Order: sequence, then C-alpha cells, then structure tokens
Amino acid sequence: MQIEHIQLTLPNQQILPFKKGITALEVMKHPAVTLQGKALYVKVNNAVFDLKRPIQENAHIEWVCWESTAGKVFFGQVTAYLLGTALKRHYPDAKILAMKADEKGFYCEVDFQGMGFEGKDLARIEAEMSIWTQAKISSEWFDTEGDLKGNEQGGLTGQVFQAEGQALSGVQYAFGEITLKVPIALLPDTGYIKGFKLLNMAGVYWQGNANQKQVTRIYGISFPEKALLKAYFALIEEAKKRDHRKLGASLEFFTFSDQVGLGLPLWLPKGAFLREGLMQVLGEKLEKAGFAFIKTPHIAHKNLYVTSGHYQKYSEDTFQAMHTPQKDEVFLLKSMNCPHHCQVYQSKPRSYKELPIRLAEFGTVYRYEKHGELHGLIRTRCFTQDDGHIFCMPSQIKQELIASVQLIISVFKAFGFEKYSAQISVRDLANLEGYIGSKANWDLAEQALVQAADFCGLATTVLEGEAAFYGPKIDFMVEDALGRAWQLGTVQLDYQLPQRFGLTYTSATHTTERPVMIHRAALGSLERFIGILLEHTGGRLPLRLCLEQVSILPIATKYIAYSQKIAQMLKAHGIRAKVDTREEKINRKIRDAAVNKTPYMLVIGEKEIATKQVAVRKQGQPAQKIMGIPELLDLLALDVDELINKVD
Amino acid sequence: MQIEHIQLTLPNQQILPFKKGITALEVMKHPAVTLQGKALYVKVNNAVFDLKRPIQENAHIEWVCWESTAGKVFFGQVTAYLLGTALKRHYPDAKILAMKADEKGFYCEVDFQGMGFEGKDLARIEAEMSIWTQAKISSEWFDTEGDLKGNEQGGLTGQVFQAEGQALSGVQYAFGEITLKVPIALLPDTGYIKGFKLLNMAGVYWQGNANQKQVTRIYGISFPEKALLKAYFALIEEAKKRDHRKLGASLEFFTFSDQVGLGLPLWLPKGAFLREGLMQVLGEKLEKAGFAFIKTPHIAHKNLYVTSGHYQKYSEDTFQAMHTPQKDEVFLLKSMNCPHHCQVYQSKPRSYKELPIRLAEFGTVYRYEKHGELHGLIRTRCFTQDDGHIFCMPSQIKQELIASVQLIISVFKAFGFEKYSAQISVRDLANLEGYIGSKANWDLAEQALVQAADFCGLATTVLEGEAAFYGPKIDFMVEDALGRAWQLGTVQLDYQLPQRFGLTYTSATHTTERPVMIHRAALGSLERFIGILLEHTGGRLPLRLCLEQVSILPIATKYIAYSQKIAQMLKAHGIRAKVDTREEKINRKIRDAAVNKTPYMLVIGEKEIATKQVAVRKQGQPAQKIMGIPELLDLLALDVDELINKVD
Repeated sequence: MQIEHIQLTLPNQQILPFKKGITALEVMKHPAVTLQGKALYVKVNNAVFDLKRPIQENAHIEWVCWESTAGKVFFGQVTAYLLGTALKRHYPDAKILAMKADEKGFYCEVDFQGMGFEGKDLARIEAEMSIWTQAKISSEWFDTEGDLKGNEQGGLTGQVFQAEGQALSGVQYAFGEITLKVPIALLPDTGYIKGFKLLNMAGVYWQGNANQKQVTRIYGISFPEKALLKAYFALIEEAKKRDHRKLGASLEFFTFSDQVGLGLPLWLPKGAFLREGLMQVLGEKLEKAGFAFIKTPHIAHKNLYVTSGHYQKYSEDTFQAMHTPQKDEVFLLKSMNCPHHCQVYQSKPRSYKELPIRLAEFGTVYRYEKHGELHGLIRTRCFTQDDGHIFCMPSQIKQELIASVQLIISVFKAFGFEKYSAQISVRDLANLEGYIGSKANWDLAEQALVQAADFCGLATTVLEGEAAFYGPKIDFMVEDALGRAWQLGTVQLDYQLPQRFGLTYTSATHTTERPVMIHRAALGSLERFIGILLEHTGGRLPLRLCLEQVSILPIATKYIAYSQKIAQMLKAHGIRAKVDTREEKINRKIRDAAVNKTPYMLVIGEKEIATKQVAVRKQGQPAQKIMGIPELLDLLALDVDELINKVD
Repeated sequence: MQIEHIQLTLPNQQILPFKKGITALEVMKHPAVTLQGKALYVKVNNAVFDLKRPIQENAHIEWVCWESTAGKVFFGQVTAYLLGTALKRHYPDAKILAMKADEKGFYCEVDFQGMGFEGKDLARIEAEMSIWTQAKISSEWFDTEGDLKGNEQGGLTGQVFQAEGQALSGVQYAFGEITLKVPIALLPDTGYIKGFKLLNMAGVYWQGNANQKQVTRIYGISFPEKALLKAYFALIEEAKKRDHRKLGASLEFFTFSDQVGLGLPLWLPKGAFLREGLMQVLGEKLEKAGFAFIKTPHIAHKNLYVTSGHYQKYSEDTFQAMHTPQKDEVFLLKSMNCPHHCQVYQSKPRSYKELPIRLAEFGTVYRYEKHGELHGLIRTRCFTQDDGHIFCMPSQIKQELIASVQLIISVFKAFGFEKYSAQISVRDLANLEGYIGSKANWDLAEQALVQAADFCGLATTVLEGEAAFYGPKIDFMVEDALGRAWQLGTVQLDYQLPQRFGLTYTSATHTTERPVMIHRAALGSLERFIGILLEHTGGRLPLRLCLEQVSILPIATKYIAYSQKIAQMLKAHGIRAKVDTREEKINRKIRDAAVNKTPYMLVIGEKEIATKQVAVRKQGQPAQKIMGIPELLDLLALDVDELINKVD
C-alpha cells in the first residue's frame, strides 16, 4: 500500500509534506513548527480541528493558543463541558440548559428539577473535576456528522459551541461511565486544564424571560497554568483594593445621595478639585491646539433635536421631556453637545478664512442608564464630556484628524497610560450605498484616519462596515496598570449634522459651501476617566491634581507653630499644605496621611527646627529624605509641573 | 382785629412764629429757611399741602424737593394733569381714564372714542403744553372738600393722586377756558416745569384686561430744569450704546438661538472666557475665605425637594418634572443649590471641630421666567450662581455674617462699583409668632447683620417684617456708572433647611446639635452680573477677563512677521495677543480694534522695528505711548493683576 501524502502550509508560509491523515498533535512535533504558546486547537483551511483530528488534504495550518481571545474562549468552553459532565454524573436528572464561555470565564445553566443545590455542593463538583483534570483523561475524535441528533435526545443538551462562527463535526468524550457527545473540537486531554475554580452560582430566569422559571447558573474560570489562576485572584484582590468606589469614598472624592438620585455623583472638595484640575490641564492643551472654549446650556428646546435628528431616536428608555406652562413648549436635558455647537457655528455667517473653527466645551450631559448598569463613576447618569467639534473644509480634514489623534495620545501618556490601541471603523466596501457625504471625502477621511494612526505608531484594527452612515471614526482603548482595557477617546467624522443644520461657509470664490464636522474627545467622560485613573493609580494622583499636596506632621504639640510657619511658606509658593494638629502619636499621623494618599509628608520635630530642614516622605516611597526648604520647594515645583509638561 | 400767630417747626428743629394762614411760599422767604433744592410742595404735620395753601395751626414743616423720590413722583403727576388738560382742550369728547406718574415719568390713558390720534398729534399737544409752561400760569388753592363729586362728572375723570398715601383737598387749576379741578396739591405755577417731553404712545387694554377695549397711553417725562431733560436724553443715548444685548452681540460675548430656546444664552469664546475668569477671581477669593468648592448635578429626584419643602411650592409656572422609564421616578431641574449642599453636609457624621463648614459652587440653575420678563443676560432661564452655604454653630453666626458682608463688598469694589447700599430684612417685632429658630438666635443674627453692615460702613435700610419665617437676610444694591441701581448679592440666615434635612453635628460635650445654615452670594447670577458689568463699563472690561488683550496692528504687510514675533513674545509672558493680518489701512485697523474694545493696541511700522519699541494705545485713552518691550510687559503684568489685587 502506497503512503499518500499531503502538503501543509505552516503559519510561517513554509510548505511541508506529511502523511495523509496526520493529526495536528503529530505535526507539532516537526522541528519546523514554532509556537508562541501551547496550541489548544488548530485551524485547517480556516476550519476548527481537534488536535487529534486527522487531516486528510492539503491545507493551511493556523495554531490557536491560550494567548489569543479565541484560545481563551475555547479553553473556557471545554471546561464548561467538563463542568456539565460532572454535574450530570452527580445529578443525572438535572437538565443542562447551556454551557457557555467568553474570554473571561464560563458557565453552565442548569435546571435541577427541584433537587437542592447549594454553595457547598459546588465544592463537591469542583473536587470531581479536579480528579478528572489530574487524571489527564484523553479525548478521542470521531467523525459523527450523522450522529448529532442523538445528542439532543440523550446525554447533554449542550449549546453548540461555534468557535469563530464555524459549525463543527462531533466529538465523543468519555469520563468514567459518562459519555459526552458534543459537536465541537476538544482538548486532547483534561490535563490541559491545570488551574480552574468554580466562582459562584446565581438564580436566573430561563432565557432571560421573567415569565420563565428560575434556573441555576454556575460560573467558573480556568487556565492552562496554575500560576495564571493565582495571578487571577491576586488581580481580583488588587482591583478590589483599587475599586474607585471604595477609594473615592474613603478619600472623600465623591458621594452619592439617594435623595438626589442614583448615578448622580456629588463631587466633594477633593474630587471637585481633581475634576477642575483635569479640565484645566486638558483646557490648556486644547487651547494650544487652537480650540476656543464655549459654554452652552444643559437643556434645549425639542426643536433643536428635531433638526439634529436625535429627537426621532429619543425613546422611552431615557429622561423624558420637560413641559412648561406654555403649550407645545418642550425641553429636553441634553445628552450630547453637538447640536448646541452647531448653533454657535450658525450664530453668524462664516467665511473660509475662519476655518477650521474648533469649539470645545466641558459639557455636562445626562443619559438615563438603567439601574443595573450604573457603576460608581464608570457608568453614571450625569457626566462631563471633554468635548470638541471642528468645523472645517474637506481639504483640512487630514491635518485636523492627525492633530486630533496626536492630541489624544499625548493626553493618555501624560496620565501614565502607556499602552493603548485603536479601532478604525470604515465603510462596508462591498456595499457603498447609504453613506452620506461624497465618496471622495470618505476615501480621504478613512485614509487620513489610518495615516494618522500609523503616524502616531498606534496599533489599530480596521473594522469594515462598522462606520456609521454619517462618517468613519477611530476609537481608542487604553490598558490600565491591572491590564484591563478601557475605551476612552474618539474622533468621528460627521457629514450629516452640517447638512441637517444647513451649516455653510463662503468659499474663496464666493460660493456657498458645507463644512465637515469632526467630533472629538480624549477622555470621553471626566467622571469615568477619574474612576479609571483612581484604579490605575490606586489613588496616587499627579501632585497638581491633589487638593492636599503636603501633610505636615508635628511630632508633638509644641512643634505645631513651626509647622504652621512652614505651611504658610509653602502656601506662598502655591503649595497646598495642611498641618495635622491632632494630639496623636506621629506613627498614627503618618499612617493616616498614607491612607489619605497625601503625596508628601513632612515630619517636624526638634531636629528639623534646629537644622532648619525637613524630613520629606513621598507617598509610595518608604525612605524619607532630609532637605532644606528651598530644596523642598524646587522638588515640589518640579512635581507640580510634571503633568503639564507631559501633556505639552 | 388782632393778628393770630402760629408756631412752625422747621426741618432743622428751629421753631418760628408766623401769621396764621401764611402759605409755604411765604414761609420760604424767611432767612432761617434753608432748602436743599427748590421746594415743590410741603408737608404740614405730615399732610401734603400746596405751597399756596394757607397754614392755619402750629405745625412741623417738611419741604419736598425734586431731589427726593416723592418730589419726582409729584412733579410727574402735575405734568400728567397738564397733559390731560391739553388733551381735553383738543379732544373735548375724549375720556381721560388715568393720569399717573412714578419717579421715572408719567402717562395719561385716554379713550379717544374713535377720533384718530397719531404720532404727529403728540407734537401738537406738546406744543400746547409748552405754551402753557412758558406762560407760567398760576394755580390757586381752594378748599373744595365738598366739591369733588362734580369733578367726576364734568371736566377730567383723573385718578386721585395720593402722594404718600394722603387724601387731599381739591385744587382748582385754570388754563385758558379750561378749568381743572383735582383733589391734589399742585405746583404754584406751570413755569416750574422747565423741561418736558412726550416720549411715545401705545395701545393697551383698559385695566390690563384683554376683554376690555383698547385705549391709548401717552408717556412723557418732565423736569424742573432744562439741563436735566438734556442729561436724561444723554443718559438714554449712553444706555443704548451700553445695552449689554447690543454690546454682547457686537463683541461676540454670547448669542441666543431660537432652536435652543428663549432665555438660554450660548456663551461664545470671549464671553465664556470672561465668565471663566470671573469664576476664577471669585473662586480664589472664596477659597481664601475658607470655602471648599464642590460640584453637584443639575437635576435631583423629586424626593430631595419634598424634603427641602421646595416641591410643595413648585407650581405650574416652572419647568415641569421629568419622568423616566421607571415608574414613580421623577426628576426636577434644580432651581437652587442648597438642597444638594445639605446632602453633601450629610454625606458623613460631622463634629463641632469641623465647623464652620463652608461649601461653595458655581451652580447653574434653571428657572422658568415668563417670555415677556426675559431680558438679555439680566433675566434668563439659565443662570449660574456664585453660591455658598455655611453650616455653623450659633456661636459662629456673627463672625460668619461679618466675613460674608466684607467679602461681598470687596467684590463690588474690585469690579468698580463704588456706590452700594443694603436692605436688612428682620422680623415683625410686633408679632414674633411663626418664625422658626430660637428667639435668642434671631436676636443674635439680626444684630450681627446690622453690626456687620455698620462695621463695613454700609448705608442700610432695616425692613421690619420683611424677613422670611426661616431667617433674616441682607440684600445688596449697587449703583452703576449711569446711576442705575441693581440688586446683587445677598446673605440669608436659614433655621429651616437644617431642620427639614435633619442636619446635625456632635458637640464638644457629645450632644447632638443642629447647625445653622447661611446662604450667601456676592453676585447672585454670573449671567446677570456680566450684563450689568458690560453696561457699567461700556464693554471696557478688566484686562484679566479679556480673551483678546492686545491687538497688534502692522502698518503694512511687510511688518506682519515682526508683529507675530512680538505676539509670540507676549504669549510667552502669558499675554494673549492677536495680529491683525488683514490688508487694511492702519486707521481702519485701529478703528476695528476700538470697536472690539481690545484693551491694548500696538501699532508696528518701520520706526518701531528700527528702535525696538512699540507704539502703545490703551483703550479709552487717546494718546499713544512709545515704549520698549520690557516696559510694555511690566505695564501689562500690572494691569492683569489689578483686578485680583483689588479683590484681595
């Protein structure tokens, strides 16, 4: 019998011959194969294959490892099947309604049919799963195309896992006496799952429908290494410590009041100062970039939103309209600033000589988020946008987009967000119908967005078909100190609003032309950004943004007078210092200043008075330094300027 | 026959004997009589007397001159009768429905019964009146107590003029063939009216009732000196020029948009800058005075206003409530900041050690003013209060009130309002029922308000019975450059809100106590103040508040480059300068910079480049000065600091 061969193209484009029917597990052993991690499954000509599934024809090979999102989802999905199997073994009459995963974890949805299932039962199931993962039970691949219906009737009624949209052949998976058939690729053996944990359980309505019965969801996480599980819990702990809601309350940055209403933050002095400082830093930056600040009301007559087209989209899911004693007079809280800015543009005739007109506003807007979606400052019903609108000629689009992207990146860097990326939403190139604005301008704008991103060395994903009908856009993501990604700024072209509002300018040849509008924001929402910044820094904010910059801690009551003299001296140099005059031990004072995250502490005692020096302790640096007052003033001045210098 | 004598007590308390039946006109000739102006009528034992009416018994004499409000009203009233008489002569069938005056002018309300009366007819009537005033026709006083009914039937159906609430004896007044009987004191002769003018006419509903027929109102003004009439028109002209709506539009400070809504200003860059600058100057002042700035949302749940008691007062005359998708969830636009500030106070337990807690906010509030009452920035539906609330112990009331009054006065002075006064509203001492808060605290607070006003050398009026039931207050009036009075700041005690919100603090002896709340504002509304400031200064604002501080005017195109170098140099020193690069003649550039009220102009030509000097022209000062750049920078730095130094 002649051995048949097939040609496999590896990810590095190398083409190698293999025996027909070889599995990916065997291919991996070839010395030419390099992997960035441990492969979990393989894509064969773009179809998802088990590592154990025979490859029968020439194909392109693509390894999928834990490091990718698809790898994480797959790994969680397999663990979900393991959980389902363990549940079925212990509760043979339970109905497994769903087994799902995303990159963050997995869950099973179970109808226990009246059998009791409590928190302590989780441990039992987890123990069973542990035995299986430690036993490294093998899976075996069968081609069961015609066998899927049987699966729906007996065994598990699991959801079909469609990794990357692919429907798959079935796999038979055996654990002890239980046989599981699922139409999905699986891991070669259970030993791949080296770290996992069932986190919690919750009662939910079946299919999210309050008229259906309640079923149980069991949530878990799983990893290919034990160290990753450990790191996960360490991160959770750190995130808890840094939770901006906790920090914000303990540092007295903001508060909420039931009487004022959910999701409506009240900014306490330290938080209000931080918010003001943020606006000042951003404001200077925007001014230098040629923006003029304006201020518009928080409400507008319905007519404004009829013109802008927003009224037609206002649904029952938002703050409703306000009436007045005058018939047919209806006002709405503003949920965006752009229509107001169009009115400012329109307040007088405009000439090409004035363009680009760049208007900025720290505009407070109101949006009715659902109760369950509110989350501290991250999701509020009232937030302030660092909003800006550029009205320009088509020929100015490119320079304005590049400047906008550069400005946004410099703001991220200034606040210590060094990792960021962007998504560019462009037209559906297969179907160019329905986009308003000329094709030439769209081409220009899309190219400019890509060029601007490239120019700034930005890692981007281009999302075809994701642009709104009125213009392409770029959205920015930043990664915080805990590795979490946040969507912040945005730059968005708009060919629609200028048309709806009938905005015009007179060209050099005296014709009447329509300007293009660019919406841009670096942070999007000051409130949300402050929440992120608090978690990113753990509350250790740039000195410029701290209402209390220096805590002066006299060792005993008799040093209070001298401490206050130093505070006055600092004040004269624009430094905000406070003397801790309480009759507490010095260690207690130091601890409290640390808890309050005051950036600098000065300890004052006999020695400091005698030597005219101060013992300076910077937040987060354990060692204290002894220095003279002039040296201290230089140090503080440098630190205060750091943020503004970074932004420049 | 023996001559009977009476004793008259003059205003200077001197008592002199006169013949019984002497007239005030004759008394005036006595060398002991001193007058601040020319007397128009006299008060005899507090009753209003014609100067020609015989005085029959011992009495206190009080002269009423033009300089007083009562004098102006009286003078206008007499002119109104003159107008009525002239109208009756030319239109015998017309019905004179009202003849009224206040300190600003007078009017007649006439039913011409279908006879045409147009603008040109005003001139004819005015000419007739002029003949009479120039003829100095005498009036003669008769005691016609029983003769008043006849007046209602024949002659003029004039309103009874009740000067200062006094009903009077009748007077017969004769002009040519027309005899006028009115129950009022009159001027001795028509020659007293040296300057008058019929201003305009308007159709109004009789008795202000839209169901009544339309009648004609003819408005006029009159003065005892021609110069005063001239000054009046000069003031009107100046006020027109300074009208903040006109200035605000031409200087591009703000705009209104029908689509956004009436009374909702949109702040353009120069105005937004001015508004920000104002907040910065006031903010620094407030910070120094121990206020901490907070920031609260522009809406609140209905519950907040139920607690504060405002909800019960919200009527149909305001912005109505906003509903949300959640049943029974109702929000209101805030029309004051105090309830929010109470929530901030209540965000944690408070100790006597923290008091006084002084919270400040530039809080934008919304009030539904009626369409007809809106007036530029003076009366808007959206305005920003320089609001502050002090929560203190009763023992701290006095110091806080004094500090508040001092702060407010220093703000007035800083902005060039040198004339100001105040009204103190206290309890009705005859009926102390219904005031909340202890009598001791009220006594203390009222005394403190009076003392604070005295301490600051403030001219005050104490209004008994004008205090709200929840606390006494002081309201400030300032006089602008045109002599017009404006109500600005206020300081108000409040014993009620702390009670309604259940605010407490722990005292030194660990008891639970209720703080007192003080509401205070220096300007009240930033918008309104900016309107007043624009009119007060005619648009010549403090340098610090100008977005464009310096206009650099190159004499020809070839000097633009050098001009821009100077602009950069100024920018490096924090001065905002703009080069006029237009191809216009230098005189045109100078004129435009003057129209724009740019504080400084630098004219740049060959000579300036050669000598490294600049020709500096300050707005409002015709002469230009030649100086070097360092000298200019010193001058500008001094001018920028002027406002902040004045506030300090």
